[in-house]
Amino acid sequence: MEQDDRKLLDAVAAGHIRSAARLITRVERDDPAMVAMLQALYRMGGRSKVVGVTGPPGAGKSTLISSLVGHWRRHGLKVAVLAVDPSSPFSGGAVLGDRLRMMDHSGDGGVFIRSMASRGHLGGLSRATGDALTVLDAMPWDIVLIETVGVGQNETDIMRHAAVVVLLQTPMGGDDVQAAKAGINEIGDIFVVNKADHKEADRTVQMLAEMIALGQRLHAERIWKPPVVKTQATTGDGVADLAAQIDRCFAANANGMPAALHRARTRMRFRVGEILRDMLDRRMRAEDGQWLEDLLDPVLARESDPYALAQRMLERAGG
Amino acid sequence: MEQDDRKLLDAVAAGHIRSAARLITRVERDDPAMVAMLQALYRMGGRSKVVGVTGPPGAGKSTLISSLVGHWRRHGLKVAVLAVDPSSPFSGGAVLGDRLRMMDHSGDGGVFIRSMASRGHLGGLSRATGDALTVLDAMPWDIVLIETVGVGQNETDIMRHAAVVVLLQTPMGGDDVQAAKAGINEIGDIFVVNKADHKEADRTVQMLAEMIALGQRLHAERIWKPPVVKTQATTGDGVADLAAQIDRCFAANANGMPAALHRARTRMRFRVGEILRDMLDRRMRAEDGQWLEDLLDPVLARESDPYALAQRMLERAGG
Repeated sequence: MEQDDRKLLDAVAAGHIRSAARLITRVERDDPAMVAMLQALYRMGGRSKVVGVTGPPGAGKSTLISSLVGHWRRHGLKVAVLAVDPSSPFSGGAVLGDRLRMMDHSGDGGVFIRSMASRGHLGGLSRATGDALTVLDAMPWDIVLIETVGVGQNETDIMRHAAVVVLLQTPMGGDDVQAAKAGINEIGDIFVVNKADHKEADRTVQMLAEMIALGQRLHAERIWKPPVVKTQATTGDGVADLAAQIDRCFAANANGMPAALHRARTRMRFRVGEILRDMLDRRMRAEDGQWLEDLLDPVLARESDPYALAQRMLERAGG
Repeated sequence: MEQDDRKLLDAVAAGHIRSAARLITRVERDDPAMVAMLQALYRMGGRSKVVGVTGPPGAGKSTLISSLVGHWRRHGLKVAVLAVDPSSPFSGGAVLGDRLRMMDHSGDGGVFIRSMASRGHLGGLSRATGDALTVLDAMPWDIVLIETVGVGQNETDIMRHAAVVVLLQTPMGGDDVQAAKAGINEIGDIFVVNKADHKEADRTVQMLAEMIALGQRLHAERIWKPPVVKTQATTGDGVADLAAQIDRCFAANANGMPAALHRARTRMRFRVGEILRDMLDRRMRAEDGQWLEDLLDPVLARESDPYALAQRMLERAGG
């Protein structure tokens, strides 16, 4: 590690925001020298509570997060927000953090808001999110909040980095709730129905509660029962209640019950898998390049096949 | 390979639809015996033209594809459609194919429509799409069309399996087009502005044409210049033109110019990478399970770190 990099580590540990921002930029740029840095940062970290917030577009996530950050700040907590945008090739992306930044917390030194957008690699955004989180978690933040706009597998993967996941829902009709059933129960620790004044709000709360009850019956090993919180992010109603539920969930995890440990292990297994895939990708792009090129021709000629080639590469990668 | 599996291969080669459907189901279930089957199928295949169609929700993809399939059928071509739904945990998914199936082509033996939905693994849906395509491509289809609803990285990955990609756009205002610029130019071979009667249609065609011209200037090595086609899927206007452009693009590729070969190699490199990642995932889930479990504890205690663990796993995987 370079002398300058050691200084950066010390600055990050001391809470120096610009040093952290510089390291996250290097994560985004896939700087190979970051691996040694991230190893050191990981071993330094682990004090922040990592909260994930996701939900469909238009559910009012940015407003709610802004209220939540305001609540935590009034209680003297320091908060970092990582806004992760799995930007579509159709949307351009990376607007979440900017939207937040423009809201209430600019100029508050106890809040750091950073956005990350898709880098175009398969699985790369979630891996980069884990790396950025490793940087932030080595700093003296009380809470690190990961936000993502929930529209697919990428978002579920990104939420896997959080110890506690808040899933935002807009009030909706019965069909939508039915359709949402499949995935929803797997990733949320706390459900929020925002826009509490909507005519379908109470009905949505009730249906979510039924869905959670069903999930608890199907998974008897679960000890934490996800609560449903009603909020009105624009007025701040329900935000204190949401913050209290987040605390409750961390307290339940900290009690060291087997389920919480099991989840931490699952999370780490996923994280290691992401890093491993990234290492493999780098090898494929780098030194193995020409070797791979020579083996592509027989595959394209259908004298060999991609499965046989993948097997050879796996053997080589470890050797 | 089992005797029954050999019979299945022969049936697929002869175009037996139910055998193909059974194999695709085994792909979805991650049947480990499918690897040997897929190796054989890959070596048998390569005759179908693989066309990808994607675009944002609401652009009229299903209707357009149905018209396109009708056009090809009237010209005596046999068509398989693989509708891939990177279903959000919020939507439930797997509706694309059903929607198509209910339209015009039920009961037509020259058309096979199959949907695939997210299996919950990172990158797994695109790999499974490649495997399903390997099954279909070993059959006597003239055209295999892959449809996906374009809202993110997963869809871009899925489109990488197609030799020719049709990107559908709805008429839109200037800001949206600006925002779309980033990713759009990278994945489309043919652009379609559907809903040709919309007031913004001509303007959108013009802006796309400008965007393409810019892309051509930036990438001098590109020989194929993506055309922009206006369609009205509900009436069938422009569909014959679109089919002709697809033919033109395949003809340009078949001329074996360096650019087309380069693309085929890029596509295969991506495919091999997906298979490799999948092999690694399987190993992590299977025999390496307990070995990995024992190494997680020091990582969770921050005496080690996930990067060091990933490195050890990579060394082991190949050994």
